[in-house]
Amino acid sequence: MYIGIDLGGTNIAVGLVDKNGKILATDSVPTHKERAYIEIVADMAALAKKVTLAGGCALEDIKAVGIGCPGTIDTANGVVVYANNLKMDRAPVAAEFQKHWNIPVYLENDANAAAFGEYRMTAKDTDSFVFMTLGTGVGGGIVLNGRLWHGFNGAGAEIGHTSIVMDGEPCTCGMRGCLESYASVTALIKQTKEAMEAHPDSAMHEWVAKKGKISGRTAFECAKAGDAAATAVRDRYIRYVAEGVNNLINILQPAVFAIGGGISKEGDTLLVPIREFVAKYNYNKHMPKTDIRIATLFNDAGIIGAAFAAMAEQP
Amino acid sequence: MYIGIDLGGTNIAVGLVDKNGKILATDSVPTHKERAYIEIVADMAALAKKVTLAGGCALEDIKAVGIGCPGTIDTANGVVVYANNLKMDRAPVAAEFQKHWNIPVYLENDANAAAFGEYRMTAKDTDSFVFMTLGTGVGGGIVLNGRLWHGFNGAGAEIGHTSIVMDGEPCTCGMRGCLESYASVTALIKQTKEAMEAHPDSAMHEWVAKKGKISGRTAFECAKAGDAAATAVRDRYIRYVAEGVNNLINILQPAVFAIGGGISKEGDTLLVPIREFVAKYNYNKHMPKTDIRIATLFNDAGIIGAAFAAMAEQP
Repeated sequence: MYIGIDLGGTNIAVGLVDKNGKILATDSVPTHKERAYIEIVADMAALAKKVTLAGGCALEDIKAVGIGCPGTIDTANGVVVYANNLKMDRAPVAAEFQKHWNIPVYLENDANAAAFGEYRMTAKDTDSFVFMTLGTGVGGGIVLNGRLWHGFNGAGAEIGHTSIVMDGEPCTCGMRGCLESYASVTALIKQTKEAMEAHPDSAMHEWVAKKGKISGRTAFECAKAGDAAATAVRDRYIRYVAEGVNNLINILQPAVFAIGGGISKEGDTLLVPIREFVAKYNYNKHMPKTDIRIATLFNDAGIIGAAFAAMAEQP
Repeated sequence: MYIGIDLGGTNIAVGLVDKNGKILATDSVPTHKERAYIEIVADMAALAKKVTLAGGCALEDIKAVGIGCPGTIDTANGVVVYANNLKMDRAPVAAEFQKHWNIPVYLENDANAAAFGEYRMTAKDTDSFVFMTLGTGVGGGIVLNGRLWHGFNGAGAEIGHTSIVMDGEPCTCGMRGCLESYASVTALIKQTKEAMEAHPDSAMHEWVAKKGKISGRTAFECAKAGDAAATAVRDRYIRYVAEGVNNLINILQPAVFAIGGGISKEGDTLLVPIREFVAKYNYNKHMPKTDIRIATLFNDAGIIGAAFAAMAEQP
């Protein structure tokens, strides 16, 4: 048995996970991210023990704990090097956790952990897998030869931070034109807002009045209902995503490319045009093609992936 | 001892290569690329034997032959799946070669072979290496954990075909905005020509009149002499290259990134601004940085890399 922990800016989610990736028990507590890391880690350890017992296991049944954290992670030393969202700066999270529970602890970047969970649960018979999440940002992970590719320094797989429009929209990372600035939910909301301002007659205004605010669903739902301005926003947004997917496939040619995050719930509306774009424009015209899919695990990917990442490190 | 063959559109270059990558003898013959692959392979095999003997070896001393070919290669079966430039379509080059010389033959994409040669000669103590050639096109190769990464289908590492300007310049691959359309020598010549038309007073006109034609050196040399229009072309061109380098580093975070091809002979004029751009804009702010370098092997990379690729496949 393994513990997988998904440390987010809002909640700490903990799961008891078996070797096949099945979650046997789960629980969460608020992160209160303004706190010192020592307090956050104490809560993580207490909740991990609680979930273990709630799942009918003894603490001795747990072989390792995996923790998915946002930010730059030194996986070899179990240190959160930097996580702006959590105010962690060279925080030795693994060692601190072990003060509460002396057990192997493995830290992983949260997007990498989610990628690894999705890979192990849906594509482990393949040698290569790329995962892209369309959320507040555009994150992801890369699995090659069955292992996460971190880069030589652990900072790799920042697939949201490749420019698709040189000198384009400013990105939070300091660059311009990053995929994240066009294909994140944040970007989609901005694109939706701009289209609403340009089209006072669009049905999106009524939708937003009813729902209370613009969201990533505004353009998709109003497009489905036939609104022209919404359709233009949706189609252009999907084109941005497709551009990023195609670029990554030209570099890595993974066996499977999975798209996750909130927007991925749009399913075929999102997937079909991306597949068509890649079929038409990918450089590979003569060899077998990457299988482009919608991810399946949604919120559980983080917990399951953290557990699998810990599992992969055990002898 | 190994034989490395660099099969180009103009010449077949063959080298006798020892296990340390040293070329002991070399020779070349014209490809006459309009011929059937059977004739080209016959010439390759004859020259390989000739070079072996010229280098003081017996045919029995050769353990394997590596061939770097342009196009899409099925490395597992030694087949050139498609090479537009050579009119090869599912050509079983390895099997055909073995009719002339019964020896292990390993086929590799030419850009991948050059990448592997540069890696083994200059960076083999690292676990990850990206090679980008700025030539007629923008090619390259990716080495991860000491092995070429081909993708699951052998078609990977097409690093020139990632868009940096969505909907931008048309690319030969059918997409728009590919790095190749901005950072190849072909693109640089186009950018130079446009700047000359816009600036009839530029010193580039005199340079071209003297040299007979526009080349990839026009802007670099006239910029060095102080011409403003040439400086603008050169700086913008370097910015395109830097954009591509930075994108790849954000995805892969390789230990070493080497830039080769004709333009790389500009040395620090090219390298220093790329390093500055990546230092400023790379997403990785907290971990060790990728070592960005100019490649060293130039024309020999193909022969040496093909030999090393064959070597890596031997038991």
